[in-house]
Formats: sequence, structure tokens, C-alpha cells
Amino acid sequence: MNVAIVGASGYGGIQAVNLLKNNKNYKISYLGGNKSSGSKWNDIFPFIYLDSDLFIDKISVDNISNNADIALLCLPNGISSTLTRGLLEKGLKVIDLSADYRYKSLEEWKNVYTKEASIYKRNDNDLCKEAIYGLPEINKDAISKGRLIACPGCYPTSALIPLVPFLSQGIIENEGIVIDAKSGTSGGGREPNQKFLLSECGEGLSAYGLINHRHRSEIEQIASFISGNEIQLLFTPHLVPMVRGMHSTIYARLKDPGLTSDDCRILMENFYRNFSNINVLPVDTFPSTKWVKNTNQNYLSVKVDNRNGRIIILSVIDNLLKGQTGQAIQNLNIMSGFSMDEGLELTNNYP
Amino acid sequence: MNVAIVGASGYGGIQAVNLLKNNKNYKISYLGGNKSSGSKWNDIFPFIYLDSDLFIDKISVDNISNNADIALLCLPNGISSTLTRGLLEKGLKVIDLSADYRYKSLEEWKNVYTKEASIYKRNDNDLCKEAIYGLPEINKDAISKGRLIACPGCYPTSALIPLVPFLSQGIIENEGIVIDAKSGTSGGGREPNQKFLLSECGEGLSAYGLINHRHRSEIEQIASFISGNEIQLLFTPHLVPMVRGMHSTIYARLKDPGLTSDDCRILMENFYRNFSNINVLPVDTFPSTKWVKNTNQNYLSVKVDNRNGRIIILSVIDNLLKGQTGQAIQNLNIMSGFSMDEGLELTNNYP
Amino acid sequence: MNVAIVGASGYGGIQAVNLLKNNKNYKISYLGGNKSSGSKWNDIFPFIYLDSDLFIDKISVDNISNNADIALLCLPNGISSTLTRGLLEKGLKVIDLSADYRYKSLEEWKNVYTKEASIYKRNDNDLCKEAIYGLPEINKDAISKGRLIACPGCYPTSALIPLVPFLSQGIIENEGIVIDAKSGTSGGGREPNQKFLLSECGEGLSAYGLINHRHRSEIEQIASFISGNEIQLLFTPHLVPMVRGMHSTIYARLKDPGLTSDDCRILMENFYRNFSNINVLPVDTFPSTKWVKNTNQNYLSVKVDNRNGRIIILSVIDNLLKGQTGQAIQNLNIMSGFSMDEGLELTNNYP
Amino acid sequence: MNVAIVGASGYGGIQAVNLLKNNKNYKISYLGGNKSSGSKWNDIFPFIYLDSDLFIDKISVDNISNNADIALLCLPNGISSTLTRGLLEKGLKVIDLSADYRYKSLEEWKNVYTKEASIYKRNDNDLCKEAIYGLPEINKDAISKGRLIACPGCYPTSALIPLVPFLSQGIIENEGIVIDAKSGTSGGGREPNQKFLLSECGEGLSAYGLINHRHRSEIEQIASFISGNEIQLLFTPHLVPMVRGMHSTIYARLKDPGLTSDDCRILMENFYRNFSNINVLPVDTFPSTKWVKNTNQNYLSVKVDNRNGRIIILSVIDNLLKGQTGQAIQNLNIMSGFSMDEGLELTNNYP
Repeated sequence: MNVAIVGASGYGGIQAVNLLKNNKNYKISYLGGNKSSGSKWNDIFPFIYLDSDLFIDKISVDNISNNADIALLCLPNGISSTLTRGLLEKGLKVIDLSADYRYKSLEEWKNVYTKEASIYKRNDNDLCKEAIYGLPEINKDAISKGRLIACPGCYPTSALIPLVPFLSQGIIENEGIVIDAKSGTSGGGREPNQKFLLSECGEGLSAYGLINHRHRSEIEQIASFISGNEIQLLFTPHLVPMVRGMHSTIYARLKDPGLTSDDCRILMENFYRNFSNINVLPVDTFPSTKWVKNTNQNYLSVKVDNRNGRIIILSVIDNLLKGQTGQAIQNLNIMSGFSMDEGLELTNNYP
Repeated sequence: MNVAIVGASGYGGIQAVNLLKNNKNYKISYLGGNKSSGSKWNDIFPFIYLDSDLFIDKISVDNISNNADIALLCLPNGISSTLTRGLLEKGLKVIDLSADYRYKSLEEWKNVYTKEASIYKRNDNDLCKEAIYGLPEINKDAISKGRLIACPGCYPTSALIPLVPFLSQGIIENEGIVIDAKSGTSGGGREPNQKFLLSECGEGLSAYGLINHRHRSEIEQIASFISGNEIQLLFTPHLVPMVRGMHSTIYARLKDPGLTSDDCRILMENFYRNFSNINVLPVDTFPSTKWVKNTNQNYLSVKVDNRNGRIIILSVIDNLLKGQTGQAIQNLNIMSGFSMDEGLELTNNYP
Repeated sequence: MNVAIVGASGYGGIQAVNLLKNNKNYKISYLGGNKSSGSKWNDIFPFIYLDSDLFIDKISVDNISNNADIALLCLPNGISSTLTRGLLEKGLKVIDLSADYRYKSLEEWKNVYTKEASIYKRNDNDLCKEAIYGLPEINKDAISKGRLIACPGCYPTSALIPLVPFLSQGIIENEGIVIDAKSGTSGGGREPNQKFLLSECGEGLSAYGLINHRHRSEIEQIASFISGNEIQLLFTPHLVPMVRGMHSTIYARLKDPGLTSDDCRILMENFYRNFSNINVLPVDTFPSTKWVKNTNQNYLSVKVDNRNGRIIILSVIDNLLKGQTGQAIQNLNIMSGFSMDEGLELTNNYP
Repeated sequence: MNVAIVGASGYGGIQAVNLLKNNKNYKISYLGGNKSSGSKWNDIFPFIYLDSDLFIDKISVDNISNNADIALLCLPNGISSTLTRGLLEKGLKVIDLSADYRYKSLEEWKNVYTKEASIYKRNDNDLCKEAIYGLPEINKDAISKGRLIACPGCYPTSALIPLVPFLSQGIIENEGIVIDAKSGTSGGGREPNQKFLLSECGEGLSAYGLINHRHRSEIEQIASFISGNEIQLLFTPHLVPMVRGMHSTIYARLKDPGLTSDDCRILMENFYRNFSNINVLPVDTFPSTKWVKNTNQNYLSVKVDNRNGRIIILSVIDNLLKGQTGQAIQNLNIMSGFSMDEGLELTNNYP
């Protein structure tokens, strides 16, 4: 299976090279970039050695489709939409890591990604409708049959996995859910940006995007679909002075205040018993993002305030792996008929 | 005014030395420590030079009372209670930075600080009743007349200041308040401790003390007092890979969902118009803990989700200053008749 | 004394605002910037509050000279040379924090700053000759009479202060000196730059500019002047994952291998007995950059390998204060007839 | 092959578990610890899951030898010497990660490790003589035949690999070598220790152990052996605010000042052509420790100052892998007849 990594020199692309270069099921047959095009991979990244030492190629539908059966699009929002129809028409499967196909309606995307919508004049509502939201924990069958996968955002991944068991079974109230999320700076990408300079964000923590962060609408769309009711929630992301890692602290109210922490733990455990990368911890064991760094794992922990039936769920992932490219490889595996986690048996290398 | 700094070589004591050494209103007349006793200050801390170069003395009521008019107790929980009555009887005023006198009832303290209660057999409920909770924003008058001040914990300080204007005026529902707090590692103190090693907590973020953290009960006690109703809330602290800084993200529900972000901003601004260290930011300006590092300031920002009348308030402090010793110096100033912020005109030195 | 801060929103400018805003000897009468011009200071930097809340003005000789008696130029290399002659002709004094006037010969500058020399067609060798190298430890008298001061680079400051006592008195060999220097990332400035992203330089250390870093020639120029002989040395800077701080580890050979560590310590102590910001530590006390963070201090420590007469000197400064703007304020004080360290009694606020 | 990991819950032991748990050539048959004994591995380290979920056993010769063919001793200095003779007599092979057998003479060890020598009354000079210094780059054949391997320290590993090609061929002067080394904090181990608290060493860099650090004598012993002459050098370690990574910057003088940077690069490349984990970079490519994090790689870069024939060599390793347990596994492979790097094909996971 020949795989194109499009947007190879960003963090998404780098993870993809790392994850695929020794994977016997796939061959990296194309690397695409714009700023870096014309360079050999090993000259730019001597520390991520590729035996094939591919040139980084200009990005175009032809360049990609002449060289690959499946394309991983690791590109800024908006750009994927200029490539996807062409790639699909050439018979490729497309796994898109951007937000372009995460909404079932193009209108909704335009409402949320207003800046990108003003640049890219999209007209592909049919593809929005067709695209499968690539969260294997809820969509594994659909993914296996899809030709266009929209990989979830990192925040939605970290928040939806813990919420889905409770929402789908109506265990928690739909109203009043709070997601307080914390991310390492690599979520901000590799482009030069003052606010992600070590001098600016080192030794400091701050919230951003209150009420209106784009990922809120993505979470609400899926959470509403899962619960069968429209869900409005509060979502606050925070920037943490570390490179990798994402932690979501989720607050909700149990419909039955008599449930114990252990009841809730068992519920999550059962729900994810077939997902080896979802690990539900014993009550009162609280995970660090450090535990999942460099892996595709998700650790969950749940605790109930028995005074009032409130529940807290903790969820940690590596924002660049389960939160991004690791999940993309899960999708790639599912689409290709391999075991979901093949090639994702990664070592955390604590500390 | 001769001031004793008791517990001088911990982070609380070091801040106190720094804040007082050039303050013309006070003289550091005594430094107390146990492990460090017998050493000269400048030998241990050549980078925090004291002209007087005091010896660090063994801690005892006599040693303190022979040398000072007022004592800052920067000691682990429980130990203050073994000194305080003696110091008061000798006519000293006491500013305690531990939790020993933060509860109006000794029983409550024993319920929360069970481990310490098993070590220190306290019998000073009268002092618990007498002690003033040293949050100048709500207790300035009482502090000015007190002889025993219980300085608030860092988390309660960062959370109560933003909550008080809304609770005292009945603007938010008492039920369902969430405080999601993040702290730098210096909150864990200077004692050797595996979990605060850079190797363990660097490049990682984790929650701890879910539901049952001791500061929850402290916050609930004051919040209930302020609102006039019993308040139960959710409080989750997180350990952040940085030295200093504390960020509280607070979620609540407005009674009147028609209030705007600006309404709420103005409400806080008015409430704190006489407190120059409380800074309410324009709507959509979100503070970093970096902004308050090395200062006694508190920055607040508020935003309303107009879809459903939910409110988010952000609050940042330096956990060792406004969250600890800076606040103690405010109390010292108020008790001594000086302007509350004298000697606390500190420079942030960004970045 | 009205002071213009030109380049106000970079790290040099921010430090200058911080250092001068409460200094009774000076008034910040002008803030200049290009990207930030038109904004009010307090809107951009709410956490560094200026009572006057000046507008940031477009940078021009007229704008500066109409508003100030003395100009602090905190600008990228090359730009100062376009303003300095004009400012001097208008009667202003100029303190330049860039490299533009650090070399006694314009030719030498052009050889080292080739990129800038190709952009800025300079013709001001007379000013290069006139400018005083603003290292108070060696040039205090000349600074007091100068009208154009070239503030040293951060690396040269950290390396020259420890070397000068040994070079000026011929204690060490001129040949074979090694300066291994380590800097926090704020030395790279506030402009967006991929290599200074937290994600790129966090959790990693690397050397750069081997053999040919620009500061090597600056160090060699001054060291040669001090010793009276041409000195060639090895200088290697390293980027350290922290915001502020600079550490130079200097290796040399004693001419008299019988000298002890204490002999060398005393020699430095005597040499700098009139400089209260230069602190020579006891033998075997090794400073951390953390000790000088947020201060204008320089801590020195020296040790001799008695087997072979080799010497190691450690030197730590805050790269943005003694390494940049703090030193500029020393120069400002000296030029203005104030005590050198006035307004620089800064608190380290450990940890 | 049954392997015992003795000292399993320190950083050395944790790396060993990580490296061996999926290695088909070895079975982790015993985990030994003292403080952690009696616990199940997965209870302490849920994020480093062991299918076998071994108990951590008390450390004793019998416990180890009843369960394993080969022992990895990941213990504090001195303790290995109490176990090693017993283990060898029971027929086990021993790979010791401490300093106990790194010196060819017990006397030398006692001179350097004075504190340990006062606690552990050693009498095993025969084993010191027998032990093989486990640096595969110089001792591969001897390792393959040995039954007791003394794994090198992290600093010696990072410094000797770049020096050996030059010393063994007499390319550089023996006199005047400087090793300026920088290490992440995990080199300080996992025991609680004030100086390794994030609050103490975060946002600061400091040197330690000037002139007399223990690793200097280890480096000198091997360097002298390699060069055939007694070598005295300067070695200065520095503590860097990051978890993992080690960088050595080495300064020396070429005997033939006409050699170019490329000559030196080629020399290293040829010397290590059979070592796939030693990577010599193109001239003017300078490695970050980030490049080798989580891998067993060593990147080298060399540059000559053609003005005076001085040479700078950069060397980066992961202090816990090539600097410790990764190297131990290389030794294990060599002793066991496997390819040296089997199971060490590790992914860096940049950033």
C-alpha cells in the first residue's frame, strides 16, 4: 500500500513519517510540501532517517495520485478541500487531518471557519456529507468502508472518548457539561508564531478561545449526535508550557446520583473493552500526560462527588498521536483491513 | 516593627525575606528554622543578601518573642498550633500562613487535616474562632483589628476573589460551581519529594486530589459564608510544569441569563475599585500566569455564554505572592496601619 | 531627563519600560515601534501598566528628538546606524543596544555583519571610532563623557567581566582560552522564529554558531585591547530550554601554575571591589543562572586544577538585564551623573 | 534468556523494563527492588504495562540467581559490589550500571568513591581487574567474552566516543582537552532530592563538580589507555532544565593544524562505519539533544578553527539510553550473541 504524506514537514507529517517508515504494511511513496519542496528528506531531518531518502515534492493532485494509493493530508485548514475531490476522482482514499470535512454540513464549516471560508470558495457539501468522522471508538465500521475520513481534532478526541459512554447511555445530564482542556504547545504547529515562542509561553499558563473555540462546535456536533439531543457545553482550552500532551478534565451531573465512582469506572471499561488503547484506571489513580507521551494510548479516570451526584472524568492523550497522526494511522489500518493498532505499539519511555 | 520569619528557608520564608529586606517599615529581627538552624543566612542564600546576615535560630516561643513584635509563621500544617498561643500570650501578633486557623471550628480542621490532627493534639478551638481569615478583599477591617490572622491557601485565594462579587450579590447560582485550577510546582514546597522532581513533573500535566482536596473545604466554608447559603462545589487542582503561577478557571450559571460579559466585567471592576492589585481585564483579553509572576497582582477576565447563561471567570496569581507571602505582607501592612500594598509594588519582568 | 525607548515592544524595550517606569530620575517620554505603532502601550501590555499610557509612535529622528533628551535604541542590527547621526546632530545622547557601534572600525563591522552590511549602506566610520563600548566595568570614565554608547552583547558581557581581571594583569595565557556559553531563549528575541518555538527548543539543548558566531569577534576585539596582544579564542554558544539566564564557563591556563583557587578568587574580588553588582563567590560555590534572574547582578566563581595550572571561571547573568537593558541603564546612569546602579536594586524572587 | 532487572523502579530499571518487555530474545524473569518490593509492577507503573505483571522482589543473590541467567544491576554505587561475586559464583553473567567495576583497580575506585568506600568494605580487586568496560565502540570483542561488564557513566560515554578516534590515532594533543558537558535532570535519579525539584532547577542552569567530578577520573582512565599516555583534562558538567538528554562540547588542539573540518569528519565516519548508532553529521550541522531523545543514537559534529588548529566536537546522547540502559542492552546483546543493536531500533518522536 503506497501512502502519500502531504504536508510532510509539519508536526503531523513528521509523526506520519515516524509511524510509517518501519511499518511493513505500508510504503511511504510520496512526501509533499510547499516551503520544503525540492529538498531531500534526510537533509532536512537527519535525525529521522528515511532509507528511501525521498525528495519533498510540490503538492498537487497529479503528483500525489501518480505516486500513491492513499493520501494522508496533514495540511492547514482549507487546503485539503482544494485537493480532496481530485484525489478521490483519481481513485485514492483520503485521510484528512484538518477540519475541512469534520462537519456534516458545509454551511456549518463556513460558520465556524470563517477566515478559511473567505479564502477557499468551497462547493463540496456532498463530500462533507460523505466524509466519515474518523474516531474509531464510535465509527469503526463506517471507517472501514469509507473513502474519505475526517480525522477529529485533538481536543474533541480527548473529550469525546470519555463522554461517549455516558452520553450514549443517558447516564449524565446533557446540560451543564464543562470541558476544561490543557494542551502542550505542539498543538499550535510548527509555523513561526510569537505566541508559541518558548520565551512567551514558557513558565506560564493561559486560557484562550473562551466560549468560541472552534473545537467546541465540533465536540457539540458529535456529542449531540451520540446523545440524540442538542448539547451545548462549555469548553476552555489552555496552553501549557510543555511540548506534547493533552489533558481534559470533564465535569457533568449524573442523572442517578446514587452511582458510585466504581460504577462509572466499570461502565467505561465495558464500553471500551475492545479498544486496547483505551485504558480505564482504578478509582483514585490520576494519569499524567507524561504517561501517554509518544504513544497512541488514552488513559481515563473517573470520580463521583457523592454529596451531589457530580462526576469528574480525566482523559489524557498525546496530542500529536491519539490526538492527530496516531489516530490517522488507526483509520488507515481500519480502511486497509489491518488490525486497528498495528504499528502503534509505541513505548512511552518514561520519564 | 520587628518581624520574625519562622520557617525561613522554605519558599514562604524566602519570599518573606525578599519582600521585607528593603522595606523601611519593618525590620527582619529573627529568622527561625529547624534543619537550617545554626547557619548564617548569607551562607545558605548568597543570592538573597541580607545586610544583617542573621543566624537562623532554633524555633521556639521564647526565641521568637524575645526578638520580635510580630511573627510570620511559614511552617508546615500543624506546627503553628504549637506556637501560636504562646506567642499571643507574649503579646505578639501572629500571621499564620498554614491552614491551622483557617477554619472557624477546630472540629472541621480535624476532619480535613486528619493526618496532622493525629500528630498534633490541638485544644485551641478558641483561637480558631478568634482568628481572622486573611483575605483583605473581604476582611480588611477585621484584619486591622486582629491579633491572629490565618492567611488563605493559594487555591482559595485565586478562586474566592473572582467568586465573591458574584456570590455576595447573588448573581450566580450557588449550585454547580466548578473551579478548575492549575498550579506551578513551587506550591508543593521545597522539601525533597519525588513527585516534584523535574524529571517526574517536567513535560507533563496531571490532576490530583479530585473531589477531596483540602482546599475545597476551605473554599466552600468562605463561599458559603459570603453567599449566606451552604455551597458545595467541584474543585480540581492540576500540577503544571512551571515554577510559579496559578490559574483558576471558574464555571458557574448566571441567575439572569441576560447579563452580558461586559455587565459582569463592570460588576467585578466596581467591587474591587479600591483594590489596586485586582485588575479586571477587558472582555476577550485572557491573562497568562506569566503576567503576574513575581508580583502581588490578580488579573481577572470574565465571559458569558449567551446561549445558556453560563459564565467563565479566569483568575491568575503568583502562588507564592498573592497566593501566599505577598498576601501575608498585605495583612501585615493592614495590621500595622500602613497602606495595604506598601512594599508590594513589584515588577513582573516579562518575559 | 526625558528618555526615548525606541523598539519598545521587543524584549529590550519591554525591560527598559519596566526599569524606567518607576525611576524618579527619568521620564519615559517616547515609545517607538514599527509594527506596534499607533497602539497605546497599556492595550498591548496590560500587565506592564504605564500611568502615562503613551502611544507607540512611528520611529523617526524627528519623532524621537522632539520628545527626548536621550535615546535608548533597542533595535535589530543595522537600523540604529540609520538614526544615530541624526539624533546626535539634534543634540541627543544615544545608547545603542545593537552591534552597530561595538567595533572601532566600520570595516570590521561589515566583515562580521555581512547580511546587515548588504542592506544598510553605512558610511559612519567616524561614529564607530567615537562610540564608547558600554561595559562599565572597564569603561566607566569614558562612558561618563560619551554621547554615543555601544552596549555590549550579552555573551561578551558574561565572558569579558570574568576574563578582564586575568587578561589585564597577564595572569593567564592569551592562547587557548575557551568560552563555553549557554543562553536562555529570550536572547533570540520576540520575533516569530521557528527555532525558538517552545516545541522546537523545549526539552532540548544544542550548540550553534561554532567558530564563527558574531560575538566571538566582539569578545576578541575587547580581550585583545585589554591584554595588549591579539587574542584568538574558542567561543561556543548553546541554546538552553529556559526563558532567561546566561552562563559562561571559561577555561584558560595560568601563567603561574602555583596560584590557588583562592588567589584567583581574591584577585577578582579586588578588581571589582567598587562594583556592587559583581559578586565573587567563595571557592566551590557554583552559581545558577536562577540566582540572577530578574536582576542586574553577575556572580563569578573560579577554580584551579592544581595538577596542571588550568583555571575554570563561571559567570552568570540575566541575559536581558546585565546582558542587555540593565547594562544600558547603568550606562544611562553614568552618562547622567547618577550612581551607576540607581534603579537597579532588583529582587531575584527565588525560585 | 532470563534477565533479572535489579533496581527496577529507578530510571535505569524503568528503561530496562521498557527496552526488554517486547524483546523476543529475552524474558524479564525477575524484578528486584527494596522500597518497592512486595508490589506488583503494574500497580506502580500502570503506564508501562507488563503482561507478566511480576511482583517486585527483595534483592538478594539467591532471589536473583534462582530466577535469571543474567543480571542487570541498576543500583546506587557500592551496592553492586555486595551482589556481584555471589551472582558470578552462581553462574550468572552480570551487567553492572554503577561505577563499582569501572576502574581497573579497587584502590582507584576507593580514592574516587570515598563515601561509598567508607560504607562498603570491598575486597574484590580481582573482579575490578576482570570486569570489562562496557563501551562497545572500543571493547566489543572483550564484551562478547566477558561475564562481568561495567557499563560506562553517561558523561564518559558522551565524551569518549568523540575523543577515541582522535586519541587512538594521535590526531590531537593529549594536553589541554576540555569537556564541557550538559545533562538533563534525570541523570540525578529518581530519589527525592531538593536540588532536582522542578522548582529548584527549572528555569536555571548551573555547573557542578568543577575539577573533581567523579566522571573526570573515569574519562581520564579510558582516554589515557586509548592514547597510550597519561591524560589530564578539564571536565565540567552542567545541569540543564530538561528531563532527558546530554550534550558534550569538546575542545582540543590538532597536532596538524592543516586538517580541515571535513578531514576530521571523515576520520570519525570511518572509525565508526560499523556502528550504526553513531552518526557523524555534515560539517556545520549541529545536533540538538532532542534528536536523540528516546533513542540509543549518538550524533557527532566536528569543526576546526583554521586560524589556530583548534577543534570542537559536539556529541549528543540520551543520558538514560546510550548513556545508561540502552548501552547496557547493547552489552547484553553482544554477550548473548545477538546483533548489537537488536531491540534498540527506537523512534525519536520529534518534537
